[in-house]
Order: sequence, then structure tokens, then C-alpha cells
Amino acid sequence: MSKLTTEVKNVISRQGVFPIATASRDGVPNVVPMTFVKVYDDENLLVVDNFMHKTKQNIESNPYMSICVWDQENKLSYQIKGKVTIHDLGPVFDQARVWVKEKMPALQPKSAVLLKVTNIYVCQPGESLGQEL
Amino acid sequence: MSKLTTEVKNVISRQGVFPIATASRDGVPNVVPMTFVKVYDDENLLVVDNFMHKTKQNIESNPYMSICVWDQENKLSYQIKGKVTIHDLGPVFDQARVWVKEKMPALQPKSAVLLKVTNIYVCQPGESLGQEL
Repeated sequence: MSKLTTEVKNVISRQGVFPIATASRDGVPNVVPMTFVKVYDDENLLVVDNFMHKTKQNIESNPYMSICVWDQENKLSYQIKGKVTIHDLGPVFDQARVWVKEKMPALQPKSAVLLKVTNIYVCQPGESLGQEL
Repeated sequence: MSKLTTEVKNVISRQGVFPIATASRDGVPNVVPMTFVKVYDDENLLVVDNFMHKTKQNIESNPYMSICVWDQENKLSYQIKGKVTIHDLGPVFDQARVWVKEKMPALQPKSAVLLKVTNIYVCQPGESLGQEL
């Protein structure tokens, strides 16, 4: 388990497009850009499934997800890894739905994906590169 | 095999930071931001290993790589998938080294990774989402 620090949360809050990486069970990676990603609480990220295709197929059989974020101005970058649960109804999905409808009413969220963070790694070049937070 | 079209090349050439996704053999995805990524020819991308850690470990045992690119202004986004070969010497490494030394002389490239493109998918929302080029 790894907590999302204030510094990591700040980078996430400033990121516009998030690369969402998953893999098939036999190890073929998939990475697609998504915008509806935010901090859910200190240990979880919320990723909304508006248009997921291969990502959904992957996490249905292999629940690992990795996301990277970066702030070039402040030279900060992190990789956030964890395992996901998929919510098609209930409070997590409700929160996702409200968020999407506020921002882009025409979208129809299909599910909410909660990423329970297990590891956060420093990605910016320098002495801390590759270290776990 | 899939060729890099002019439109895909244009999006690549305008991208500053590239999310590079790999996976362990048992399917744990890894995605990190890299800047030294460019078109090598119509069928290959060049990714320079300046600071690779987990990415290198992954591709040494599981040669699949996926990269996503996007151009928000023109609403274009692609995922580029393929298999890599690692070059520690020879013409591919020489080209990578010259490129890095021109741009950032202080860096010491460790190897060059050539991504042979097998599939390109449309990632921007719309009718073509998920379709292969």
C-alpha cells in the first residue's frame, strides 16, 4: 500500500491527459490517453470508463493498472501502480457519473474503475529516479 | 505489420512527452514518460534508453511495447504497438547517440530500442475509436 502524497496529488490535479496502461494476462501492454482521472482518496484513484475497449478487456482478466503523470515546469514525474476494481453501480459509480455529467453532459459513463494504489515511483531524471515513495 | 502514416508521424513529431508502456511476462504493466522518441522509418520508432530501469527489465524478457500519442488541438490520438529489439552498438545505437548528444550533450545513452510497429489504433473519441489503421 502506498499513500498519495500532497505532492503527487498536486501533479495529478494539474495533468490534463493521463496515459492508462494495462496488460493482457500474457503480457501485452496497452496504453491509451484518458481525461477523466482524479484522486478519489489518499489511497485510490478514480478512472471513469467512458470509452474503454481493450483497457476494459484487460482489467476484467488482469486487474493491474499503471498511470504516469508529469509536471515539466516543476520537474516532477511519478508512476502510480495498483490493482483495480470495476464498479457498474453503487457509490463509486454514482460519483463518477455526477463528475462526468457536470463536465460533459453528453457522455454516458459505462463504469467506474477504482485504482487502489500499491506503489508510487519517481520518474523524473535525477538521484531519486526509480525510487519508491 | 502496420506503416506509420503521415498523419501519425505528424502527431508523433509534435508530441513532447511519450508514455512508454511495457509489461512483465506475468502481465504487470509499467508506463513511464520519455522524451527521446522519434520516427526511425515508415515501420519503426526509435526509443533511446537514457534512464530506463523497469522498462529495460521488462523488454529484456517480454519484447512488447506500446506508446500513445495525442494532439488535442486537432483531436487526433493513436496507440502504436509493436515488438522491440535492443541495440547496444551498431548503426541504430550510433544514430540514437548522435541525436541525444546534439540535444543534450550531458546524457549518456545506454542503448537504443527499435520498436517495429505491428498495430496502430485510433484513440480519439468518435466513430473510429478503437479501429486499427
